[in-house]
Amino acid sequence: MPSATASMVHLVGAGPGDPELLTVKAQRLLREAEVVVYDRLVSPAILELLPRGAARIYVGKAPDAHHMPQDRINALLVKLARAGRRVVRLKGGDPFVFGRGSEEAEVLARHGIPFEVVPGITAASGCTAALGIPLTHRGLATGVRFVTGHCRGGRELDFDWPSLADPDTTLVVYMGLANLPEISRRLIAAGLAPDTPVAAIANGTTARQEVCRATLADLPERVREAGLGAPVLTVIGRVVALAEEWGLDLAADLGDEAAGEGDAAAERAERWLAG
Amino acid sequence: MPSATASMVHLVGAGPGDPELLTVKAQRLLREAEVVVYDRLVSPAILELLPRGAARIYVGKAPDAHHMPQDRINALLVKLARAGRRVVRLKGGDPFVFGRGSEEAEVLARHGIPFEVVPGITAASGCTAALGIPLTHRGLATGVRFVTGHCRGGRELDFDWPSLADPDTTLVVYMGLANLPEISRRLIAAGLAPDTPVAAIANGTTARQEVCRATLADLPERVREAGLGAPVLTVIGRVVALAEEWGLDLAADLGDEAAGEGDAAAERAERWLAG
Repeated sequence: MPSATASMVHLVGAGPGDPELLTVKAQRLLREAEVVVYDRLVSPAILELLPRGAARIYVGKAPDAHHMPQDRINALLVKLARAGRRVVRLKGGDPFVFGRGSEEAEVLARHGIPFEVVPGITAASGCTAALGIPLTHRGLATGVRFVTGHCRGGRELDFDWPSLADPDTTLVVYMGLANLPEISRRLIAAGLAPDTPVAAIANGTTARQEVCRATLADLPERVREAGLGAPVLTVIGRVVALAEEWGLDLAADLGDEAAGEGDAAAERAERWLAG
Repeated sequence: MPSATASMVHLVGAGPGDPELLTVKAQRLLREAEVVVYDRLVSPAILELLPRGAARIYVGKAPDAHHMPQDRINALLVKLARAGRRVVRLKGGDPFVFGRGSEEAEVLARHGIPFEVVPGITAASGCTAALGIPLTHRGLATGVRFVTGHCRGGRELDFDWPSLADPDTTLVVYMGLANLPEISRRLIAAGLAPDTPVAAIANGTTARQEVCRATLADLPERVREAGLGAPVLTVIGRVVALAEEWGLDLAADLGDEAAGEGDAAAERAERWLAG
């Protein structure tokens, strides 16, 4: 089939979870969508916004247990576009910051399918802003760095640890809950101060937000005690202490009532998919 | 005056320029605002969205020629909040990624003024998404790093250059047009390949977007030839070549007609401020 007949696929970032942190463009595209292909990191509250008539296709489950393998997701996007459907591929956070959005873009390009990338608030920005933690701050952090702490197939993390152990750069680790003990140990061995402030955040910006405040040294223990579940975003650097100096409460609860609503939305979404 | 009477100040990210890349929350807060305090990096098209009745206070001009010094901006925010006004402090990009948003948060906290940070699409995400350049990509970039290339008072850039010269990390330099020759020279001296792909972007995501595609070695020359004006965002890394492999045109024009509208909006904004 000639590619000229294919519709454009929108690779859209859903942001960190709070529906108000969608961009105006993402909100518009979701309202106009005929098919929304989404994964596990898209929050239930955002799924609530989809038009009743739009088909929803859930393709993601957990980091090591994909509901649908990546090549099947790619093939699905190509097929939907060639069928002329208005497709939104909705991904948690920003499609081009981890999350394999670029692999999908590559496949679409190879098949001559037009695509557009709509950026989203990435978890590093969204989760820290909600807590009042700046990513940069004069005298404390001259820059910021995002890495993923998740590695496939149980392999060791392949970082240049001395480079990561920079006290003047805020380090944000996406995913990688299971590797926090190694990250803590290796950064300290590479020279980062054991008392460097750390915040580990689960479900940031949503009603189910949980925050674990630790030092680099006691991070693994604190996270285990707190019982944080994946996915977790971990922010390492002196900026983490600023929010507390400013009198903000990192562990503040965003409200149980809203959390219940989120769960109900997830259940409804599951029923839609099953039905 | 007791702080309990002060209204909350919203430190809001305006994103990279395209009004559709505002968050839904930023859009709502702007519509409800009584006073909007904004700086140079907020695009004219976004100023168009402000309600006619809202007071607009322009506080920023150029990196080394502030229209209003930072301590005066801080004092202004405190005063407006204590007067009970609904204040939005609107900053280009994300308020907590460079841009001194955290300094304003600190002053508000010290004065007992409640504040909330609303993240924005930071230039690194917004400008690259518009061009189809992923910030991370399996096999090409395992992470991304943001630094500022601007330094005060003509001093030398204070980077750990060997750490920055990492071929597996996408490096995004905010600002710092004047320092691109030094950045190019030092990164190459520290071991980054001279043919590393680079894109320098001015006015990204807006109708006045200009993109200069270069290698690390010829970056200063190409940017000079292109006549790019500040502020410029510079993306350095192998991911830059992906967009071209996918058949996307990095230098595509977003349309002169829209550019004209942007200029007209800027002129109208200037008249409002003067009037």
